[in-house]
Amino acid sequence: MVKVDLNSDLGESFGIYKIGNDSEVLKYVSSANIACGLHAGDPFVMHKTVRLALENNTAIGAHPGFMDLNGFGRRKMDLTAQEVYDLIVYQIGALSAFVKAEGGKMQHVKPHGALYNTAAKDEKLSTAIAQAVYDVNPELILYGLAGSWLIKAGEKVGLKTASEVFADRTYQEDGSLTPRSQANAMITDDEKAIMQVLGMVKTGEVTTVSGKKIKVKADTVCIHGDSQKALAFAQKINDALKRENIEMKAFI
Amino acid sequence: MVKVDLNSDLGESFGIYKIGNDSEVLKYVSSANIACGLHAGDPFVMHKTVRLALENNTAIGAHPGFMDLNGFGRRKMDLTAQEVYDLIVYQIGALSAFVKAEGGKMQHVKPHGALYNTAAKDEKLSTAIAQAVYDVNPELILYGLAGSWLIKAGEKVGLKTASEVFADRTYQEDGSLTPRSQANAMITDDEKAIMQVLGMVKTGEVTTVSGKKIKVKADTVCIHGDSQKALAFAQKINDALKRENIEMKAFI
Amino acid sequence: MVKVDLNSDLGESFGIYKIGNDSEVLKYVSSANIACGLHAGDPFVMHKTVRLALENNTAIGAHPGFMDLNGFGRRKMDLTAQEVYDLIVYQIGALSAFVKAEGGKMQHVKPHGALYNTAAKDEKLSTAIAQAVYDVNPELILYGLAGSWLIKAGEKVGLKTASEVFADRTYQEDGSLTPRSQANAMITDDEKAIMQVLGMVKTGEVTTVSGKKIKVKADTVCIHGDSQKALAFAQKINDALKRENIEMKAFI
Amino acid sequence: MVKVDLNSDLGESFGIYKIGNDSEVLKYVSSANIACGLHAGDPFVMHKTVRLALENNTAIGAHPGFMDLNGFGRRKMDLTAQEVYDLIVYQIGALSAFVKAEGGKMQHVKPHGALYNTAAKDEKLSTAIAQAVYDVNPELILYGLAGSWLIKAGEKVGLKTASEVFADRTYQEDGSLTPRSQANAMITDDEKAIMQVLGMVKTGEVTTVSGKKIKVKADTVCIHGDSQKALAFAQKINDALKRENIEMKAFI
Repeated sequence: MVKVDLNSDLGESFGIYKIGNDSEVLKYVSSANIACGLHAGDPFVMHKTVRLALENNTAIGAHPGFMDLNGFGRRKMDLTAQEVYDLIVYQIGALSAFVKAEGGKMQHVKPHGALYNTAAKDEKLSTAIAQAVYDVNPELILYGLAGSWLIKAGEKVGLKTASEVFADRTYQEDGSLTPRSQANAMITDDEKAIMQVLGMVKTGEVTTVSGKKIKVKADTVCIHGDSQKALAFAQKINDALKRENIEMKAFI
Repeated sequence: MVKVDLNSDLGESFGIYKIGNDSEVLKYVSSANIACGLHAGDPFVMHKTVRLALENNTAIGAHPGFMDLNGFGRRKMDLTAQEVYDLIVYQIGALSAFVKAEGGKMQHVKPHGALYNTAAKDEKLSTAIAQAVYDVNPELILYGLAGSWLIKAGEKVGLKTASEVFADRTYQEDGSLTPRSQANAMITDDEKAIMQVLGMVKTGEVTTVSGKKIKVKADTVCIHGDSQKALAFAQKINDALKRENIEMKAFI
Repeated sequence: MVKVDLNSDLGESFGIYKIGNDSEVLKYVSSANIACGLHAGDPFVMHKTVRLALENNTAIGAHPGFMDLNGFGRRKMDLTAQEVYDLIVYQIGALSAFVKAEGGKMQHVKPHGALYNTAAKDEKLSTAIAQAVYDVNPELILYGLAGSWLIKAGEKVGLKTASEVFADRTYQEDGSLTPRSQANAMITDDEKAIMQVLGMVKTGEVTTVSGKKIKVKADTVCIHGDSQKALAFAQKINDALKRENIEMKAFI
Repeated sequence: MVKVDLNSDLGESFGIYKIGNDSEVLKYVSSANIACGLHAGDPFVMHKTVRLALENNTAIGAHPGFMDLNGFGRRKMDLTAQEVYDLIVYQIGALSAFVKAEGGKMQHVKPHGALYNTAAKDEKLSTAIAQAVYDVNPELILYGLAGSWLIKAGEKVGLKTASEVFADRTYQEDGSLTPRSQANAMITDDEKAIMQVLGMVKTGEVTTVSGKKIKVKADTVCIHGDSQKALAFAQKINDALKRENIEMKAFI
């Protein structure tokens, strides 16, 4: 049976600041990427989110980001590869302690925001991230943009990897996402977005903006859940997967 | 052979801000309490300090504190027991990932500053701390003020504990430290301070300010190392231990 | 014509974290207490909120709190009077620059959360706060709990003050609020809460939980606006004031 | 009589973290750039530094930076022009309140670190900074790299500006500093560095690395003071200025 993982960013609240709709989103995903206190999340939020994920039998991953709460980790910061390595170790460690305290097991690591995007195009940063993950726990799976340096670096250091695809973004002939600055970057029609996902999962191919078909590895799909619209879409994808006999399944 | 552990707070730098004299202090102690990024330290400092401790064969412990960098964790904050539990889990986890990445093993946890002092007198907070340590790793040793709630709570949840004594503080008949607000709180004469330590280690007793002898458990002695004077004292204690055939030794 | 000021805490968002419903609340209050970046708010939020308040002709005040974003300034922290003085100067200055840049004028200062509550009962902290306000701008009005040290200290250093009362809290014979730990602390019935406010404003008296009438100065009423229920209550108070020919009015 | 301003970055300590040697440096400079709490400094440090500067009759300026304490404001962050505007307003306001409380007058604003360097080459960011300074107080002087966008933007919005030169850096034919990545970027010989400064101040010209003389405006010279070597250099520059009958003088 064909399988695919659906993942979502969770545990992004901080203190009294609430964000997202974690208990709802957890119904529609197989893997949770949990913020680790530097760009979002705090020790109290992390603990609650880990418990919630375990209750929902959702696989748990660390979602490390830049040390930039005010920018939610979305602003690029010029860090050395060594600094990035240390940021990753710190955040995986912090989250894994909650997972351990709750009797769970961590499945994966997915870098967040500007760190994810910067590393995707940067061999050195990707290698630093992959090495950090490996050094803390070589059994963790590294999530990264399909075809990016993150995936290559993960494989090189000996990690299992999960190639991530996007339902609502169009693709270029070289396999990269069309930059948001271009008019045709987003797929706003839900049906088209779902068709793209089903196609990628079933055939391992995607049709680019130029009309050409290219190969793409679709191990996991990123699901947003921070609005009612996003939740409705998550539900539609779930329905579509069932209809097509594709199993939503994490990797452990 | 009589043994005692000497411990010191290390890794308290942050970014370009340097504090302490870690590479010197490490020559005179058997255990290092390493700050975990909330009241002091950052991921980069933690990594360097863990490596430095391993190179010196010094046992490594987490030194978790309140989330108050500006106050260096020395200002009391009103947190619930659950919040304290989560703070402890977070910080142990973050440090242990660096220890793991460097191939070491964590020995202990010693709460820092206002958290240490507040918990010492508070059963609920001490229990939260002890439980957090246990839940992350039941083999960790909990350091706390000799005779305090931290030690009792540690024993109750099933942890090994290390009772800490102070060279430069006087004791009350009930085993508590004389409050700093009182004139006779500090022992400023180095020879007297060393005599007090030797006495505690060899006989398990200390002479209180009233002249009475009381029992005190002296598993570990706190050594300051942030000034030349403090370093000179550390050296003197080392010399005195050798002279008296007392071995300086960590617990693992 | 009888007048009263209605004030509300605004500008408490941070980065992408949204809190409150500022544009709605501004319709029902005459004064806005704007967070200054330490317990809530950031430079971008402050700028937007100042502009929004000016557009609504709402008087602007600084709402300084402890340096504790994770606790939203609600956790007591042990600071010296000098440290509190400096925190107040810093935050008033930061906000006043936005008010100046937008061509407005700052009216008042109201301490936030744990700082407000702690100072209310502490002469030294209240004096530090009042002196800080005076030293930055002697024309600012200091808001504080009616009958508290904040009001007394403000008067002593030569500031105009505004005594604050609460619609939804009961009073003790000594003029203090019934502690929340007691069953009868809160007034949950909207009509009763509004009757209490109208009584305080019109007669300068309030009936305590023991049934005795005592004097209370009601210059300004605190209005919550962070939920639909709170907003509905704000609207009801506005209607009641109009019905009773009481003018809602700031002090400048 | 020929005049020149010497400026130095001060007030960069944070909590118990001490940096620099402010009381010594103040003997050798006419203007102090004081950190404002985001990349360095805190309310308590700011207050002490303002008082110290006033005692030394040193002119006071705000030294605003990115919100990045861990990176000391030296890491480039991708902010919009509006965000930079707000950061500047916030920090000028916070510092100016301390200056006001101490009865002083603020002279200038000099952006710090990565913000200074990024803005120097970016018209939009420079304009945002200049406009922010002007909107808070049009009498403030904007310090910026001689010939940079900061100076042009300051002039355009109607501010007085001070063109800054460096003693220990070499210049390119286009007036820019030789990038640190190149071997000949730094002038390590103290005498040569002093000769360069004297030349720039007296003739308005500097000899570039190619040997060509170009014009350079030298209103103010940046003096480092964070090490004994730096302090010794500051003293040497002071002596050289006296010898050459050049007056060290701020702009107000």
